[in-house]
Amino acid sequence: MAEGESVINEFTLIRRYFARVSETADVALGIGDDCALLRPIAGCVAALTTDTLVAGRHFPIETAAHAIGWKALAVNLSDLAAMGAEPQAFLLALTLPEFDASWLEQFADGLHALARDAGIHLIGGDTTRGPLAITITAIGQVPEALALRRSGAQVGDVVCVTGTLGDAALALQLLQTPDSMHPTTDAHRQLRARLDYPTPRLAAGLCLREFATAAIDLSDGLAGDIGHILAASNVGAEIAVQDLPMSPAFAQQHAPSQRLQLQVAGGDDYELCVCIPPQRLREAQAALALALTPIGRITAAPGLRWFDASGHSMTVELSGYDHFKF
Amino acid sequence: MAEGESVINEFTLIRRYFARVSETADVALGIGDDCALLRPIAGCVAALTTDTLVAGRHFPIETAAHAIGWKALAVNLSDLAAMGAEPQAFLLALTLPEFDASWLEQFADGLHALARDAGIHLIGGDTTRGPLAITITAIGQVPEALALRRSGAQVGDVVCVTGTLGDAALALQLLQTPDSMHPTTDAHRQLRARLDYPTPRLAAGLCLREFATAAIDLSDGLAGDIGHILAASNVGAEIAVQDLPMSPAFAQQHAPSQRLQLQVAGGDDYELCVCIPPQRLREAQAALALALTPIGRITAAPGLRWFDASGHSMTVELSGYDHFKF
Repeated sequence: MAEGESVINEFTLIRRYFARVSETADVALGIGDDCALLRPIAGCVAALTTDTLVAGRHFPIETAAHAIGWKALAVNLSDLAAMGAEPQAFLLALTLPEFDASWLEQFADGLHALARDAGIHLIGGDTTRGPLAITITAIGQVPEALALRRSGAQVGDVVCVTGTLGDAALALQLLQTPDSMHPTTDAHRQLRARLDYPTPRLAAGLCLREFATAAIDLSDGLAGDIGHILAASNVGAEIAVQDLPMSPAFAQQHAPSQRLQLQVAGGDDYELCVCIPPQRLREAQAALALALTPIGRITAAPGLRWFDASGHSMTVELSGYDHFKF
Repeated sequence: MAEGESVINEFTLIRRYFARVSETADVALGIGDDCALLRPIAGCVAALTTDTLVAGRHFPIETAAHAIGWKALAVNLSDLAAMGAEPQAFLLALTLPEFDASWLEQFADGLHALARDAGIHLIGGDTTRGPLAITITAIGQVPEALALRRSGAQVGDVVCVTGTLGDAALALQLLQTPDSMHPTTDAHRQLRARLDYPTPRLAAGLCLREFATAAIDLSDGLAGDIGHILAASNVGAEIAVQDLPMSPAFAQQHAPSQRLQLQVAGGDDYELCVCIPPQRLREAQAALALALTPIGRITAAPGLRWFDASGHSMTVELSGYDHFKF
């Protein structure tokens, strides 16, 4: 296992780009042993999630390495946010087709930029050679009774979403339109940032665990994701499509006919969808630093029903987003 | 996100093959939410490890799905064993090129067979489409003071290994010899089982944490792996090559000239290498259900030195195994 000049091995690689931290109050042992050791937080259970990003499937091939690093962590932290968990640490399993120092440096910078924002550290991982893929496992802590499950929605709860919907899906659509490949306007750039640099709603999740009965993060599109809450809670929902929040950049774009599709089935929003008892809605909105928009209501009748601006029931044809459809 | 007859989506897939368990005493919430929730064990820290297996790199392409499922979990549990941690649960990130019901069923069976042996459950994961790769994150529990780090080796400690070395490497070599593709003798089959179905030394790890000053699991080959203990502990070692334990099946094979190479640089042994104070060696050997063979000694002089049967220093040319060498 001699490390000659022309041999960059797994261990050298990990040391060079990823081992930026050792022990903290929570981390009894970081990178560089058979396992990392994490101290539990009194009164909490560990929240664990793992998500893989595959090149060309979960991000466009031409995505900057810095953005890939950020996003790989962001999608996992978003799951912690949806659980109302406080992030504690993460592990990285990185499969690379080749050694590219510049790519790795930028990837690590993007990863660590979000880790720093979230106040957490990389504590372990694995590096292998193969087609580009990034699997991160994030660990958080949450008092068991406060954890936001999908299964707690109650009939009468108000369905709310944080932030705005459809930005990332619109950015992806613009990217796939040849003339719009490179963002040329501020609006384009804002949309592209929502695709490449999603913000996990960690502070919102911590705040909302005091109010919400159920939560999920919006990764695959509102329609599909809210469906998981309905199935787990054994309820239905009515959603008013005109209430779906959109960003100014999104609203500026043409083709309003496609807006609904992008907002309900586009995916990659990484906003939170939560169910809140109506009497606690205002308090929750006041407590949150972020916009929390009511978009509908939980019903005893099963199924997901859509309503237009006039309050009429409408059909929404979904061309949903599924990372594993055959 | 409608699930038509011709559409097998991620969620259906996960439910069908992997969701065999829900809550236990440790598992507050299993598969099917944004995160799994794990209860800490009083007096313990969480031990976390993640490892990826890439098809054709970490296992031969023709490996049976059942063995791939087993091995993907085994290599992670081996890291817990090397830490002296008791396994608690695991997460699976599975990237598949196509939907193959029979492959998935066998993969899941192999995975669950080892999980059952280890007394743990799959608590979450992610399924994506792409080139075949399996990333597992395993979580265990260990009292912080008893955790077996790489950094604790002391001058004078006896270097020991569990079980036997070189079987998996020999099996791989036989596989790569055209005439030996299919195991035809009992010895071949035994060697092949060591390659495809490694046994994580969990019970040994729990037992040895009472005796050992340092430990590592042998995944990349003895020479490289022991080097990590030496570097972390800032010591050296002398190893007697004639003491390296071999199985009867291994000893039966021809080409003794290659034995040393297979035993010190072959990789995939998944035995434990531990350092034990000499006065505690017998007690440790008596306590262990498995053979624990002394193979050398920790020295103040840095570096790894090999000795032959006559006690003469010898040079070992290593053609080491590194999953990420360019």
